[in-house]
Amino acid sequence: MNASKRIFLAEVREQPTSLLTLLEHVGAFVEVGRACAERKPATVRLVGHGSSDAAASYGVYAFGLLPGWTALRDSISLSVYYGAELDFSSSVVIGLSQSGRTPDVVSYVERARERGALTVALTNDPASALAQAAEVTLPLEAGEERSVAASKTFFNELAALALLAGAAAGREDEIWDGLRRVAVLLGDAIPELEATVVPLATTFAYVGRMYVIGRGVELGTAREIALKLTETCRVAAEPLTSTDLAHGPIAALDSMFPVWTIASHDECLPALIDAAARVRGAGATIVASGSAAAEVEGAEWRLPVPKAPLAVLSPLLSVVPGQLFAAALAEAKGLDPDRPERLTKVTLAQ
Amino acid sequence: MNASKRIFLAEVREQPTSLLTLLEHVGAFVEVGRACAERKPATVRLVGHGSSDAAASYGVYAFGLLPGWTALRDSISLSVYYGAELDFSSSVVIGLSQSGRTPDVVSYVERARERGALTVALTNDPASALAQAAEVTLPLEAGEERSVAASKTFFNELAALALLAGAAAGREDEIWDGLRRVAVLLGDAIPELEATVVPLATTFAYVGRMYVIGRGVELGTAREIALKLTETCRVAAEPLTSTDLAHGPIAALDSMFPVWTIASHDECLPALIDAAARVRGAGATIVASGSAAAEVEGAEWRLPVPKAPLAVLSPLLSVVPGQLFAAALAEAKGLDPDRPERLTKVTLAQ
Repeated sequence: MNASKRIFLAEVREQPTSLLTLLEHVGAFVEVGRACAERKPATVRLVGHGSSDAAASYGVYAFGLLPGWTALRDSISLSVYYGAELDFSSSVVIGLSQSGRTPDVVSYVERARERGALTVALTNDPASALAQAAEVTLPLEAGEERSVAASKTFFNELAALALLAGAAAGREDEIWDGLRRVAVLLGDAIPELEATVVPLATTFAYVGRMYVIGRGVELGTAREIALKLTETCRVAAEPLTSTDLAHGPIAALDSMFPVWTIASHDECLPALIDAAARVRGAGATIVASGSAAAEVEGAEWRLPVPKAPLAVLSPLLSVVPGQLFAAALAEAKGLDPDRPERLTKVTLAQ
Repeated sequence: MNASKRIFLAEVREQPTSLLTLLEHVGAFVEVGRACAERKPATVRLVGHGSSDAAASYGVYAFGLLPGWTALRDSISLSVYYGAELDFSSSVVIGLSQSGRTPDVVSYVERARERGALTVALTNDPASALAQAAEVTLPLEAGEERSVAASKTFFNELAALALLAGAAAGREDEIWDGLRRVAVLLGDAIPELEATVVPLATTFAYVGRMYVIGRGVELGTAREIALKLTETCRVAAEPLTSTDLAHGPIAALDSMFPVWTIASHDECLPALIDAAARVRGAGATIVASGSAAAEVEGAEWRLPVPKAPLAVLSPLLSVVPGQLFAAALAEAKGLDPDRPERLTKVTLAQ
């Protein structure tokens, strides 16, 4: 038994409840989504670090698929450090930060606002510097997150981005309803998933490196799961798209270098299945997660989740096996996921 | 001795010459750069896989810093697999591919052109499918690249993006002159760098995981060096920005998990130096490369390169120690960098 109070695990379990709390604010999301749509933005610029940056990867797809807008994880360095003279006048900017205190995210949002962007803060703290810097603040409503490793913040960031993108597309009712159903499906699925990850964690206790493969809407999920495994379990876990894998990293695989695949029911599934076949050919162990886990041939381990009511909402289900596995693997390794070494809840690094 | 004919190493050495060949085409770059500028693009969308995607990361900064345009590594999935209805009418699209045969890059460029983008192909093969799909083709002039692991293609992609971005900003003379001087500086530096990487490779022969840290213009360099180490040396090498490192991965470091840092003389140097201090605090070995390698305190190994005539051209010098180290490490491990396992020169994966 390690000293962990299992706060991280408790917070993973809270996610369905946090999501329902967020959904109570649908009115605010609709209002901001409409304001974004009036702007007819050439770009939606998403900025954040760590888990918030992983959520931004999801935002690229949520805005691309729902209102059909070009969204990007913008370079903070270009504006904040290099002082590049970019045109923000036809942009919506979304700053993502649990604490609202990430210094260069705040600086970026300040500059973007001065340059004419419609700036939106997504944060747990409506009194934070980020909230003050942005023209509009939307609540994350993840509640107090006490584990250093984030879970419910990321989860509610996904939901918030889906709701905002849905509102921008005039599809808020459909997304709201889908998210409500996700909360129910997830609440039902968590107990069995928790049991399933335990033997997997025991088997993987000595693994030092992994790839986490996702594509399209699941790229952000892959980034978040890899980050959890890295920070809580000290595994060198790298997120890759299925195509990235084929363009080089496949050469590094062997039987001690397992690959976590996120297979969801959407247009990227064939590419994911193709990538898994290459992994199998390299003799590496495959963990298949996601709603389409059963379709990944040759997987040694399967962690299926219910199919999302809408494909664009799949990541809210797909991320959870990864979070639970990270908690179990940290336990198996005698590490404390609530307090990873050298990390603090608010990172003030440049 | 392994069976390698050392083609990869020979191609790394050819880079100064390949660059000079590319520079003969400056007229074509100026013409296309002007056409891009007339379009007053809301976005420059860069697409490619593997090394070409790493070069695209550099393009984000080249276009951001020179003409002040918003460039992004666009999602191929969104357009090609999901069929998202994005507006390309005010975009310039640049498709990057050594062979010009990467299937989904070709599909992406076809769709972007149909939707009104100004499409530019950057490829070694002007008769390729990519060149046919795009409205305009610019030559890479890297010559035949026989090693499966790319080097001079990536290198000339950087130069081509700098030249195009420079032409778009009306600064082609300055960039052309800077690149010529880079070719000379690099030619002079390679012999000593080759000698310096040999003892480093011997020491690192049993390393299984590394981080490669770069920020701003050097992010693409970090991505390319990590990719070389992964594909030619089977090291799990992950590229990170200095900020990414602080937001999680720092927790995974230990004395057997070394960190390669790329320190160049530009506005991101303080962030890089700060990240290196965190790495040192974690007890990990630091390799300091780049023109500002001497400023990284506590580095066990230093691989300095000459300072670039213009900071935006730094990556053309910074990438070379990484390429040479990958060649030497593969040799030390008895691997053949010309023919990594499970890879072919043209990747046709989705």
